[in-house]
Amino acid sequence: MNRIINDPDEVVEDALAGITAAHADLLAKTGHPRVMRAVGVPRHGRVGIVTGGGSGHEPAFVGYVGPGLLDAVAMGEVFASPTARAFQHAFKAADGGRGVACLYGNYAGDNMNVKMAVKLADREGLTVKTVVANDDAASAPASERDKRRGVAGEILMWKTAAALAAEGADLDAVIAVARKTIENTRSVGIGLSACTIPAAGKPNFTIKDGEMEVGIGHHGEPGIAVMPTKSARDMAALMLDTIVPDLPFGRGDDVAVLISGLGATPLMELYILYAHVAEILAAQGIRVRRRFVGNYFTSLEMMGASVTVTRLDPELDRLIGAPARSIGFTVTGDE
Amino acid sequence: MNRIINDPDEVVEDALAGITAAHADLLAKTGHPRVMRAVGVPRHGRVGIVTGGGSGHEPAFVGYVGPGLLDAVAMGEVFASPTARAFQHAFKAADGGRGVACLYGNYAGDNMNVKMAVKLADREGLTVKTVVANDDAASAPASERDKRRGVAGEILMWKTAAALAAEGADLDAVIAVARKTIENTRSVGIGLSACTIPAAGKPNFTIKDGEMEVGIGHHGEPGIAVMPTKSARDMAALMLDTIVPDLPFGRGDDVAVLISGLGATPLMELYILYAHVAEILAAQGIRVRRRFVGNYFTSLEMMGASVTVTRLDPELDRLIGAPARSIGFTVTGDE
Repeated sequence: MNRIINDPDEVVEDALAGITAAHADLLAKTGHPRVMRAVGVPRHGRVGIVTGGGSGHEPAFVGYVGPGLLDAVAMGEVFASPTARAFQHAFKAADGGRGVACLYGNYAGDNMNVKMAVKLADREGLTVKTVVANDDAASAPASERDKRRGVAGEILMWKTAAALAAEGADLDAVIAVARKTIENTRSVGIGLSACTIPAAGKPNFTIKDGEMEVGIGHHGEPGIAVMPTKSARDMAALMLDTIVPDLPFGRGDDVAVLISGLGATPLMELYILYAHVAEILAAQGIRVRRRFVGNYFTSLEMMGASVTVTRLDPELDRLIGAPARSIGFTVTGDE
Repeated sequence: MNRIINDPDEVVEDALAGITAAHADLLAKTGHPRVMRAVGVPRHGRVGIVTGGGSGHEPAFVGYVGPGLLDAVAMGEVFASPTARAFQHAFKAADGGRGVACLYGNYAGDNMNVKMAVKLADREGLTVKTVVANDDAASAPASERDKRRGVAGEILMWKTAAALAAEGADLDAVIAVARKTIENTRSVGIGLSACTIPAAGKPNFTIKDGEMEVGIGHHGEPGIAVMPTKSARDMAALMLDTIVPDLPFGRGDDVAVLISGLGATPLMELYILYAHVAEILAAQGIRVRRRFVGNYFTSLEMMGASVTVTRLDPELDRLIGAPARSIGFTVTGDE
């Protein structure tokens, strides 16, 4: 594996140096080396929006900090949770006096550290409420939704919550809209190759040539089935067969679709997948009102893609369409 | 190689179906299946901006069609030139009555087909002038600049020309600013893995583990040296040692830097590279006024990156910073 790195143990630090050098208009350092905030944050009188997670998923998470999106983010090492101290620091960085919404993904380390950080913040008089994303429909059965992982659906949750916060809503309203977003969101991924954590030097799982892992997690967590690769059309059908009945989405629904490459899959292939996703949804009477196709939530150089579908009501539609600017996600309002 | 495709011979068509389904706000079909135009084009009284090239470089080329950027684009098969007819059709699609600027890369097939298309357009009374990009400093010595290939520097050429056209400039002025942009631009790539054309099924070149190809072209064209991989810091130094003396860039210059992944390299690594590029340029007294880091001009799932540097004068700086919206490149004006 040929990489553009220096010391494999310093990739997060080195990447952060580049990110801060490149985006001084968007991002500012804080007193904690693994916490970044948006320029102009905290915004007095506004609910702060925070997330955090492991590195290696770029542009997630730091790439979603910016106006109309996240106020602060806590970063972990590659595929590892940020510390409780980092989360706590991010809460403080985002605190504009009306409380903080911490909207993150359902992973053991993140759960533990967020819970601890919320307590630490509470002792200092800062109210933090949380929503834990569990949009990965393949990571546990519907009867055990609390075990499901959060994946690319988190991005739309951040987007709606941040847009509502920007409108001046209070913490409970922001938390409610984040929860509504993620409860109406389902995702599934297909892995087509493994990836290698730089400091490990070799992949911790394998996907054979000619096979795919359906339901793979963002760190290579096992999916629901390993099977021979299919055509893009059949992959789309398989993914939607996992997602659509799970919510369930149905005829007459308006939805947002987000297709994210897992890192190494060419953009061309993501659009091929999107064509079939759109076609199948249309045939089921489900209207795609907003769509995003690109590398939004990756797993280093894994090949494959995830499909995320969110059922929209007029509020979610308006909030997703509100202007925002960040490394990973920019909405100009002209879309 | 596990891919998200249907028939390997139909990847361009299938991807285009997804692109048009996803971006009806940006892109419209024309009478030619391999030509797309921006919504609202032709714009009466405005010089049209056209490019074209092979597929497999997404978001190039179709991903740069949109307001403030390209008016129409001709697409070829993977790594193959569009036909002369496709270029001709793109010229017509972009014709707002003040002529068309065709700004493309220096490849044998493109040169031949553009030349033929310009003649065909001329017979129909449509004036098309051309600028051929040759920013790849590693593809031929400085004494043979006309042999150099066009790579990611094309994006900045399209950007400045389109922004000037949007200001109402005439064809000669638009051509002059495109030429000024590319004459002040140098690029170099480093390849860290090969890539596979879907219809071929296997790579047509190899890069060994532990080795890198310095100066690689966007289709795997041989570079200037194969050598053991270096640290990101040393890669940046090596790339700038190729670019900086070539123009030459010097103390006091203002520049734009564009770092593009070649497809499969994680965004994290592109930012690590950017950190060193910025640091080295700063040490040489060269000020980075604008910077773009992402997957702007790819080669399917090749690993590696290219570095592009453009010397800015106040006009180029203003034009690069003018608002634009497209799949691959959006400037809100708040950067």
